[in-house]
Amino acid sequence: MKTYKINEIPVKVHGRTIQGACPLPLFWNHAGVEVNCTGSELWIDLEVDCDFHEPWIATELNGAFMSRQMLLPGEYSICLYRSMVPGVVKNFKFYRELQAMGEDEKTHILVKGFTTDGDFLPVEDKKLKLEFIGDSITSGEGTYGANQDTEWLAMYMSSSRHYASIIEKALDADARIISQGGWGVYVGWDNDIRHNIPSVYEAVCGLATGPFNEALGSLKPYDFKSWVPDAIIVNLGTNDATSFEQPPFDVPGVGLCKQRKNADGSYNAEDAEKIEKAIIDFLKMLRKNNPTSHIVWVYGMLGYNITMLISDAMNRYMKETGDINCKYITLPNTTQETVGSHGHPGYASHERAGKVLCEYLASQFNIPIKEHEGNL
Amino acid sequence: MKTYKINEIPVKVHGRTIQGACPLPLFWNHAGVEVNCTGSELWIDLEVDCDFHEPWIATELNGAFMSRQMLLPGEYSICLYRSMVPGVVKNFKFYRELQAMGEDEKTHILVKGFTTDGDFLPVEDKKLKLEFIGDSITSGEGTYGANQDTEWLAMYMSSSRHYASIIEKALDADARIISQGGWGVYVGWDNDIRHNIPSVYEAVCGLATGPFNEALGSLKPYDFKSWVPDAIIVNLGTNDATSFEQPPFDVPGVGLCKQRKNADGSYNAEDAEKIEKAIIDFLKMLRKNNPTSHIVWVYGMLGYNITMLISDAMNRYMKETGDINCKYITLPNTTQETVGSHGHPGYASHERAGKVLCEYLASQFNIPIKEHEGNL
Amino acid sequence: MKTYKINEIPVKVHGRTIQGACPLPLFWNHAGVEVNCTGSELWIDLEVDCDFHEPWIATELNGAFMSRQMLLPGEYSICLYRSMVPGVVKNFKFYRELQAMGEDEKTHILVKGFTTDGDFLPVEDKKLKLEFIGDSITSGEGTYGANQDTEWLAMYMSSSRHYASIIEKALDADARIISQGGWGVYVGWDNDIRHNIPSVYEAVCGLATGPFNEALGSLKPYDFKSWVPDAIIVNLGTNDATSFEQPPFDVPGVGLCKQRKNADGSYNAEDAEKIEKAIIDFLKMLRKNNPTSHIVWVYGMLGYNITMLISDAMNRYMKETGDINCKYITLPNTTQETVGSHGHPGYASHERAGKVLCEYLASQFNIPIKEHEGNL
Amino acid sequence: MKTYKINEIPVKVHGRTIQGACPLPLFWNHAGVEVNCTGSELWIDLEVDCDFHEPWIATELNGAFMSRQMLLPGEYSICLYRSMVPGVVKNFKFYRELQAMGEDEKTHILVKGFTTDGDFLPVEDKKLKLEFIGDSITSGEGTYGANQDTEWLAMYMSSSRHYASIIEKALDADARIISQGGWGVYVGWDNDIRHNIPSVYEAVCGLATGPFNEALGSLKPYDFKSWVPDAIIVNLGTNDATSFEQPPFDVPGVGLCKQRKNADGSYNAEDAEKIEKAIIDFLKMLRKNNPTSHIVWVYGMLGYNITMLISDAMNRYMKETGDINCKYITLPNTTQETVGSHGHPGYASHERAGKVLCEYLASQFNIPIKEHEGNL
Repeated sequence: MKTYKINEIPVKVHGRTIQGACPLPLFWNHAGVEVNCTGSELWIDLEVDCDFHEPWIATELNGAFMSRQMLLPGEYSICLYRSMVPGVVKNFKFYRELQAMGEDEKTHILVKGFTTDGDFLPVEDKKLKLEFIGDSITSGEGTYGANQDTEWLAMYMSSSRHYASIIEKALDADARIISQGGWGVYVGWDNDIRHNIPSVYEAVCGLATGPFNEALGSLKPYDFKSWVPDAIIVNLGTNDATSFEQPPFDVPGVGLCKQRKNADGSYNAEDAEKIEKAIIDFLKMLRKNNPTSHIVWVYGMLGYNITMLISDAMNRYMKETGDINCKYITLPNTTQETVGSHGHPGYASHERAGKVLCEYLASQFNIPIKEHEGNL
Repeated sequence: MKTYKINEIPVKVHGRTIQGACPLPLFWNHAGVEVNCTGSELWIDLEVDCDFHEPWIATELNGAFMSRQMLLPGEYSICLYRSMVPGVVKNFKFYRELQAMGEDEKTHILVKGFTTDGDFLPVEDKKLKLEFIGDSITSGEGTYGANQDTEWLAMYMSSSRHYASIIEKALDADARIISQGGWGVYVGWDNDIRHNIPSVYEAVCGLATGPFNEALGSLKPYDFKSWVPDAIIVNLGTNDATSFEQPPFDVPGVGLCKQRKNADGSYNAEDAEKIEKAIIDFLKMLRKNNPTSHIVWVYGMLGYNITMLISDAMNRYMKETGDINCKYITLPNTTQETVGSHGHPGYASHERAGKVLCEYLASQFNIPIKEHEGNL
Repeated sequence: MKTYKINEIPVKVHGRTIQGACPLPLFWNHAGVEVNCTGSELWIDLEVDCDFHEPWIATELNGAFMSRQMLLPGEYSICLYRSMVPGVVKNFKFYRELQAMGEDEKTHILVKGFTTDGDFLPVEDKKLKLEFIGDSITSGEGTYGANQDTEWLAMYMSSSRHYASIIEKALDADARIISQGGWGVYVGWDNDIRHNIPSVYEAVCGLATGPFNEALGSLKPYDFKSWVPDAIIVNLGTNDATSFEQPPFDVPGVGLCKQRKNADGSYNAEDAEKIEKAIIDFLKMLRKNNPTSHIVWVYGMLGYNITMLISDAMNRYMKETGDINCKYITLPNTTQETVGSHGHPGYASHERAGKVLCEYLASQFNIPIKEHEGNL
Repeated sequence: MKTYKINEIPVKVHGRTIQGACPLPLFWNHAGVEVNCTGSELWIDLEVDCDFHEPWIATELNGAFMSRQMLLPGEYSICLYRSMVPGVVKNFKFYRELQAMGEDEKTHILVKGFTTDGDFLPVEDKKLKLEFIGDSITSGEGTYGANQDTEWLAMYMSSSRHYASIIEKALDADARIISQGGWGVYVGWDNDIRHNIPSVYEAVCGLATGPFNEALGSLKPYDFKSWVPDAIIVNLGTNDATSFEQPPFDVPGVGLCKQRKNADGSYNAEDAEKIEKAIIDFLKMLRKNNPTSHIVWVYGMLGYNITMLISDAMNRYMKETGDINCKYITLPNTTQETVGSHGHPGYASHERAGKVLCEYLASQFNIPIKEHEGNL
C-alpha cells in the first residue's frame, strides 16, 4: 500500500475548484474526484471540517451508486473498496452530496490523496459537459428523507438522487452543479436580496466564505476557459417567486426589502422588473463567460408561478443581444406522489423532470440516451 | 322500441353545434351526444356523408371506451348496445373521432335521434369545462396507426386516445376540441396564411364550409355564453414553426407567402413578428369571448422551436392588457418510444403530456385527479 | 372494384376453422382473416347472425389496432379502409373479439370474401405459433367496460386488449385462442361438469353447436397437423376453484354435482382428485395431438386458490408419462388498480401478466422481445 | 451527551440474535437496531471485525433510506444524525446490509449501545411479521453495482434494495432475513451438499461459525417462540437447479457429489428426489418450529428450471401432513432490463417481484398496500 498526493496522480476533478491544489477542496454539490485504479484496495485521504452542517458524500464504482455517508471533522482516510481483483481497472468516483454551505464557514472537504496497492490510469473526459445552476431543487434538497421530515439539514440534500446525475448518466456526460437553497436569480425566498446566484457565479466558489475558504482561493475569479460546458441549465426563479409571499427582510445597509403583490394578486410591476433585469443581466454574465454554451432555462418543478416573467426576461435578453443559442422550457411540477422531504421534489420528481430535460438535451445535441440498467 | 328525435329527449351535447337543431350536426372532433338511457337496447339514428375523408366515431359506455368505427354515407342506425338489463340507467356517449374536415365539404355526421325500448333521463354537466384549441396534435393525428403509416387519413385521427380525453376523465370534466391539422395561429405548415385557427374561431364551426354545412348554420357566430369554459388550452405554434422550413405558398389574391429564416438559422424578425401579432390578437379574441376563462398556452409535443416567440407574444399581450389569468407551459416532447403514426405523437405521448397538463389544471383549480381504472 | 371469394385469394386464416371453406366461419375469439392488399380501398363481405350475444370484431392495419365494433345479423360488407395510396401493400387483419358463444347457437361470422380495386399478395406465417387455452380470462372478459359494469355481455370480451395479443405482437407470433367463460378443466364455475374445455378441444370448434354450426363442420375432428403450435399456454383452473364455493348444479342425466370443501376450508380430497385427473387427462390429450409443442400451464390472474392442485396434477402427469416439455408458472394476480369490468382482469392486468408470460416464452424459445411503439 | 448500553434502553431488535446480549450481535442481513430518540444528535457505538468480507450497513430515518457504508474492524462510534431539533422523536434504524458471512469467521458487527443528548422511547412492533429465507437473491446480491461487475463481494449485497424491504415498507411489517448466497435447500450451486439452509435454520445463526461467533451464542438453538412470523417466504431452489449444470464437488468425508442430468436433459430421478426430500423435510422443520405461520414458497427470479420439482415436493408435503397453510407461486424472472451486478436480480427486478409478492401477502392477510412516497 502506498499513499499518493492528489496532485501526483492522474485524477479527473469534478466541480469548480483550485486547479492543481493539494489538498484539493470539493466546494460544490457533486464536486468530486474520479480515478481509474488497478489496486485491490483503495482509500481516500481527507481533511474535513464543519460546524452545524456536516458534509455528506456518495461514491460510485464503475458508474453505479455504492455508498452515501456523513463526514465529520478530522483528518482521516476512508476505504472506498477492498478485496477486489488486483490489476483490473476500477473506475471510482467520490463526490460531495452537499451544496457549498454558505451558512457554515467551517464546512469543507479537502482531498489530500489516495492510498492503494495499485496504479492510477487517466480518466477520460466525457464528450458532453453540462453545468447546472439552481437553488434548493438543484441542491437536491428533499431527495432523501421521509415526507414528514421538514428540517433544513445537510442529510436531505444530494446529487446522487438528482436530475443532474440522472442526465449525466443517461447522456454519458460530465455534470457540474452551482446551487444554493433559498437563493434566487434576484432575491432569496425571504426577500434577502443578497441571496442571488449571479453575485457568486464568477468566483471559483463565491459561497465558500470565511478565512479558511478564502485562503484556499474560493473567492478568486473562476477560469471559465478551463471547462467549457456544452450546455448550461439554469433552474432559478422558484425563490424569487416565493419572495412575493413573504414578509420584508431587513438587509443590513439597505433596509427593508420586499417583493410586492398588487391587490389583484398580480406582481408589482417594479418588483417584477427587478427580477427580469436580474435574469437579463445573469444571461449576459453567462454568455460573456461561456460564449459557446447552449443556455436552457428550466422552471416548474415547484410550480409555474413566474413562468411568464422568466420567459419575458429571456425574450428581452435575446432581442437585445441577438443571442439565439438559448431556450426556455418548463419541467413537470412535483406532485403528491413525487414529493420528497421538506416539501421539495423527491427522487421520483427528479426522475420525471430529468427524463424530460434529458430528452431535450439529447435532441439539442443529437446524441442517444443510454438505457437504464437494473441498478442506478 | 320507439324512435325519438334528438330534440325530444334530454341529451347532453358535446362540442359546439346549432343548439336545438334536429338533426344535430357533430362538427368538431370529440363532438357528440351523451344520454342516460334505461332501455335494454339503444340505437342512434344518423345521416352521414363524405367524399375522401370518411368520419370515424367512438363510443363510451359508463365512461369506458367501447367501440370505434368508420362511418360511410347514408341514412342509417347504429346499435350502441343491446341485451342489457332493462330499467337500469346506462350512460352512453357517441362522439366524433375526426376533426372538422375543411378539405371535404361533404363530410358530416348528423344525429337524428335515438331508438330504444327505454326512457331517457337527464345527464348532468360536469363541474369543470375545458376547451382545447390546436392543430394536428389536438386533432389526435397519429394516435392510431403503426409507426410506418404516413398517409394523411381520417382513420389516424382521434379524440379517444388523446390528451384532452385523458384529462377529461382524470378531472371529471367536459372537454371540447377546436382543431385543424396543418393549421397555425398565424400560418399553416406550408406557408398558407389562410390556415390560421383565429379566422374560424368565432363561428360555430368555421371549418365546415360548403352549401350543406352553411345551410346547417356552421358559419353563424358562436354563442360564447352558451358554454363557458373554466380553462382554454391553446396548443398552437407547431405549424407556424414548420412554415419557416417550407417553400413559399402562392395564396390566391395575395401572392407568394413565406416565413423566412436568417442566414444564421434564426427567424426573420418581420416574419416572427407576424406570428407574435397573431398570438396577441388571438389571445384578445379569446379573452373578449371568454372573459372568465383561465387561458393556458401549451407547446412542445412536437418540439420547442418557437417556444421563445410564443412566450414573448404572451408576455406582450399580458402587459398590454393587464390580463393575468393566463399562463404558458411546455409539455414533454414526443420521443422515439412515444411517437405514433405519421411522425405524430402516439397514444403514449398523449398520455405523458396529458398527465403533466392534467396536474397543472388540477393544481390551478384545486381539484383531485381520479385514479385510472384497469380499462381506460 | 372487384369482389373476390375468400377461397380465390391468398388469405392468412387465424384460428381453427374449416380449411378451404367458402364462406369461411370465424368460430373462436381472435379467429380472423389477414390479407396483404394493394388496393386503395378494401371491403370485407360478411354473413352474420346471432340471438342474444352479437359478435364483435376488431381490425388492425399494419399491425396497429384500428377499429372495434358490434356486428349484427345480415349479409353485408364493411369497409376496412379507403382513400389510401393504390399500389402500396397494406397488411390488414380482421378478427373476432368474441369467444365461440356456446349459449347462442345462432351467433356466427362467416367471411364470404373481399372487395377491392387492388390485388392480394400472400401473407407469410410468423415463425412462432402460440395456442392459448382458457376460460373467461382468455376470452378477454373484462378487458372493455367500466369497473361498475357487471353484466355478462359480448361487448366486454375481446382479444384486442388481451395477454395473447400483447404476446403475439411482442414476439412477432401468430396466436390462436380456445376459450370459454365460466368453464374449467374439469367443471364450470357453477358445478356444471359439462362445462370443461377438454370435451370440446378435439373438434374444430366444439362450442359451436346447433344445426347451423354443425352443418358448417364445427364438430368435425380438428386436424392438429394443419397448424402446429410451438407453445400451448393453458390458463385453466379459475372456474374449477370457484366451483367449491358455489351451490350444487343439477346436471341432466347425472344429478346434483358439487365440488365440496372440508370443515377446515380445505378441498375435499375426492373432488380435488377429479380436477387433478382432468388436468392429467387433458395434458395427455394435448400431448397426443401436439407431440412437439411446449406446454406451459399458467394460473393466478384471478387468484392462486388451486395452484397446488394444478402443479400436483402436472407433476403426476410428467412422472407418469416422462414428458418433460412442460412447465407450470403463476402469473401476477389482478389488483384493485388493474381490474376491469365484471370483476375480471382489465387491460392493465393483461398487460402485466402478458409481459411476464412473454418474457418466459422469449427465454424458452430464445427470441427477442419487440419494443412497444407509441400506439399498440 | 450520554452513552447508553444497548440493554439499558428500549430498542427494537431486528433479526435473530441473542436476546439481551450486550454488546448485541447483528448476525443476519437486515439485522439491526431501531430506536425512537428525542436527542438532537445520535451516535451508535460499535465493535466490528472482518477479514476478506467487510460488513456494510444502511440506515433509515423515519422510514426513509439515509445512508449506506462499509464498516471496517475496530471499536468506534458512528454519528447517525446531528443538528436536529431536540425533544422531537426521531425513528432511526441501523441495519446490516450483508448476509451472515459463512466464509469469513471474523466478520461481525456488535452494537454496544448509543450516545445521545436525548431520551429513548419504546418502538412498537409492527402488526405483521415476515421471515424471508433464501440464497443470493435474498442476500440481495446484485442489488448494488454495475452490470459489468462480476466479483463476489460484500458491497454488492444489500437488504436496502431488496424485495423484502420493499414489502416490509409497503405492508408496514417487520421483516427478518435468513439467507446465504450459493446455498440451496438440498445442495449448493457447486454440488457441495453441506451448503443447505435447513442445516443452519434451527440455530440462532448457524452460518456464524468460529470461536468468536460461537462464544456469542450463534450456534445455540433459536427460540422460535420469541418472534412468530405471520408468513414465512422461502425463496430457495435456484442453486439446487444450478448444481445439475456444475462439475462434481469433493465433500470431505463424503466424496464426490454431483446432481446428474439424463441424456435428454431431464433431471436424474434419484437426484431430483434428493431435492424433493430436502424440501419436504424443510417444510416439516418450518412447520414444527412455526406452527401458525403461513408458508409461501416463491421461485423464478433467476429462472423457472425446477419449478415442477419444488411444487411436487410441496404437494407431497401437504398430502402427507395435511398442512394446508402453505402455497407455491412463481415470481417474474429477471430480464436484461432488470438485471443488476454479477448476473443477479437488480433493484428493478426486486421491485417487480416484490410488488407481486406484496400483493399476494396483502391479499392473504387482507391488509392494505401503502402508497410509495417520492423517496423510498
